[in-house]
Amino acid sequence: MISGLIVLLTDFGDSDIYVGVMKGVIKTIHPRAEFVDITHNIEPQNVRQAAFALFNAYRYFPPGTIFLVVVDPGVGSTRKPIAVQASSHTFIAPDNGVLSYVLSELEGIRIVELSNAVYQLYPPSNTFHGRDIFAPAAAHIAVGTPLERLGPFVERIFKLPVPHLRLEGNRVSGQVIHIDHFGNVMTNIGRLDWLTPTQLRLEPRITELSTPMLMETAHATVAINEQSITDFFQSYGLAPRGSAFALVDSNGNLEIAVNQGSAAQQLQITIDDRVELQIGQA
Amino acid sequence: MISGLIVLLTDFGDSDIYVGVMKGVIKTIHPRAEFVDITHNIEPQNVRQAAFALFNAYRYFPPGTIFLVVVDPGVGSTRKPIAVQASSHTFIAPDNGVLSYVLSELEGIRIVELSNAVYQLYPPSNTFHGRDIFAPAAAHIAVGTPLERLGPFVERIFKLPVPHLRLEGNRVSGQVIHIDHFGNVMTNIGRLDWLTPTQLRLEPRITELSTPMLMETAHATVAINEQSITDFFQSYGLAPRGSAFALVDSNGNLEIAVNQGSAAQQLQITIDDRVELQIGQA
Amino acid sequence: MISGLIVLLTDFGDSDIYVGVMKGVIKTIHPRAEFVDITHNIEPQNVRQAAFALFNAYRYFPPGTIFLVVVDPGVGSTRKPIAVQASSHTFIAPDNGVLSYVLSELEGIRIVELSNAVYQLYPPSNTFHGRDIFAPAAAHIAVGTPLERLGPFVERIFKLPVPHLRLEGNRVSGQVIHIDHFGNVMTNIGRLDWLTPTQLRLEPRITELSTPMLMETAHATVAINEQSITDFFQSYGLAPRGSAFALVDSNGNLEIAVNQGSAAQQLQITIDDRVELQIGQA
Repeated sequence: MISGLIVLLTDFGDSDIYVGVMKGVIKTIHPRAEFVDITHNIEPQNVRQAAFALFNAYRYFPPGTIFLVVVDPGVGSTRKPIAVQASSHTFIAPDNGVLSYVLSELEGIRIVELSNAVYQLYPPSNTFHGRDIFAPAAAHIAVGTPLERLGPFVERIFKLPVPHLRLEGNRVSGQVIHIDHFGNVMTNIGRLDWLTPTQLRLEPRITELSTPMLMETAHATVAINEQSITDFFQSYGLAPRGSAFALVDSNGNLEIAVNQGSAAQQLQITIDDRVELQIGQA
Repeated sequence: MISGLIVLLTDFGDSDIYVGVMKGVIKTIHPRAEFVDITHNIEPQNVRQAAFALFNAYRYFPPGTIFLVVVDPGVGSTRKPIAVQASSHTFIAPDNGVLSYVLSELEGIRIVELSNAVYQLYPPSNTFHGRDIFAPAAAHIAVGTPLERLGPFVERIFKLPVPHLRLEGNRVSGQVIHIDHFGNVMTNIGRLDWLTPTQLRLEPRITELSTPMLMETAHATVAINEQSITDFFQSYGLAPRGSAFALVDSNGNLEIAVNQGSAAQQLQITIDDRVELQIGQA
Repeated sequence: MISGLIVLLTDFGDSDIYVGVMKGVIKTIHPRAEFVDITHNIEPQNVRQAAFALFNAYRYFPPGTIFLVVVDPGVGSTRKPIAVQASSHTFIAPDNGVLSYVLSELEGIRIVELSNAVYQLYPPSNTFHGRDIFAPAAAHIAVGTPLERLGPFVERIFKLPVPHLRLEGNRVSGQVIHIDHFGNVMTNIGRLDWLTPTQLRLEPRITELSTPMLMETAHATVAINEQSITDFFQSYGLAPRGSAFALVDSNGNLEIAVNQGSAAQQLQITIDDRVELQIGQA
């Protein structure tokens, strides 16, 4: 089941030795390990942004993949380092909620605390558990060490609160979760199961948020930063150059974009800004 | 012939999940695929910059390499996704001209449109063909799927206009194509076959642009932003610290640099600025 | 002994084709080579920063690893390209001092000048020895070419001066070497053998700098930019949010940090700033 593939997601950036050192530790234990980086540019210590990135990315990796997620503001304090096995995926992370969204849709979850010093670098530092605890755990699991050898089973882990989606009549309020390299604005209004057609009192044939659905709905409106967006296009290239529009992105979430421009810059949007989607008349 | 090596070039940046997700899709189809990244920091939607980067880089990769090039302002509009096989290289890209320069020097070219849904993720999104069409195509070709299975052959593809090189007597005008991490200014005046000694009325013994040739030529001058550069050095370390000079770079193109400084900053040069090289007296 | 693992450390940044091209050259010579990047964001031409990064990172990689270090302000001038084999590690780099710190703790060192054109791209450029000399050397050594085939043995190489640690009584003065992605400030006061308890007149039981030692020592003080820091915590999460503190980091060096903030920004610290650690009363 193990693919030998270790996938990394951190807030370590691209300028330090941290990510390379974690890979060195893994290669020392497991010479045939292979790596793919999701990104190392999660905003420093933004656990929620990392949780969304992981949620949108993990499903595209093969069964057996081990995800090493180190966004860890609490390193060296009381939060536990954990490993989670769920059907065909394994996640190594601090117990700070960063796995909340992926675990919400996985089954057969088994969780251990990474407390067995045999599978850590000795002595572990207080400031770089990525190197001393998380990376060795990923490598040992990848070579076949049973999960239970790494520490005792844990029943409960920390969970992030459900994203701040509020439903009032035909309006749903959410937040900006991520602004991508192009200035496209990603929100948490979308595929997550917390948003259902029933709650939105939509016609039964509508089973998910989609751009065509929004295009066909009279008076669909996105409100953000006291600006209203009523244009919806299925792709960037179909929108007029330079003006803001909305779409449902490739992960099923409401996105605000500008064709060949930066929506974040043009509308002065930053992470955590409130977004409102109205479907049908107010 | 296939090496299992998939080389990526995009404008996706290093902060989003996009590149990692494409690699996950490929590893799911082709577990033994290996990756090398050229860069993911092409300026957003700068097809011409990507075309030059690919042109300068591809020749250093082994036969059988598959290049996955996703700089795709037209995603979801009418431009076609294509795969091109040429002697020993394969290129997967949108049909927007990004392959123009490499194809200008390759032979035995076969091109297909990536329209066969069997080799795509289902349903393909309108905004992320990198994940849904290009990455699966790269993986399927890498495992040996014949090109013609991915879609019908295409006769003509979109080509970028020849770089804006203008020849007047002993002067050639071009443009700034790329500014590198050090602030070195790369131009399109150089090895490209569009520039020939004959056109420049150079002595027959001169077969290509080189720093020694420029050093030996009386009155060789580079003009940019109303500034003149008449110093030529073979390498950065040989030039006086802090003053601008010109050289023919490791790809054969005219470059403007400052030893231990940034030429772009010092001379206030940006991409697309006009550059003129005069060889011999005006 | 050779692991096939080639580890890269450069100042080439993430926006150009340079790193990808070096990997292409290596894969052409050695199709089974695997890569790990330490970082490519060493400050342009900052040889000392690169030397420290390598020193802190290399020990976490498996025996047989080949380190390809290209921070090379003198490319094309008189500095030699060299390969160094030391016990179980190999280093390929320009002879500019970048290997100084790692070689200070390794034994059985053999050094050659990379002058044999058979193992270079032909003709080597004057500006990109990473591609034309260093990458081919790494690949040829990785496939088993004996070191002495690459060029003649060299007795002496260039060494960086010992870091500017000055000891006066119970005070030691050093410098800021690196500021990480989080704004944590790394100094050269630490594990390096140049700093010994004897020199500092510490109690004999103290064998190395550590956070607990500093916490237990009366009047331990860090001075930087006319500010004094007297708080020491073992990890970021244990410190009060937003105020500066000091610790001994995961590499054994004195570090200045702010929990969930940037120490560099808050205290206006830049690379090369002077730092002073006083242990015990003045």
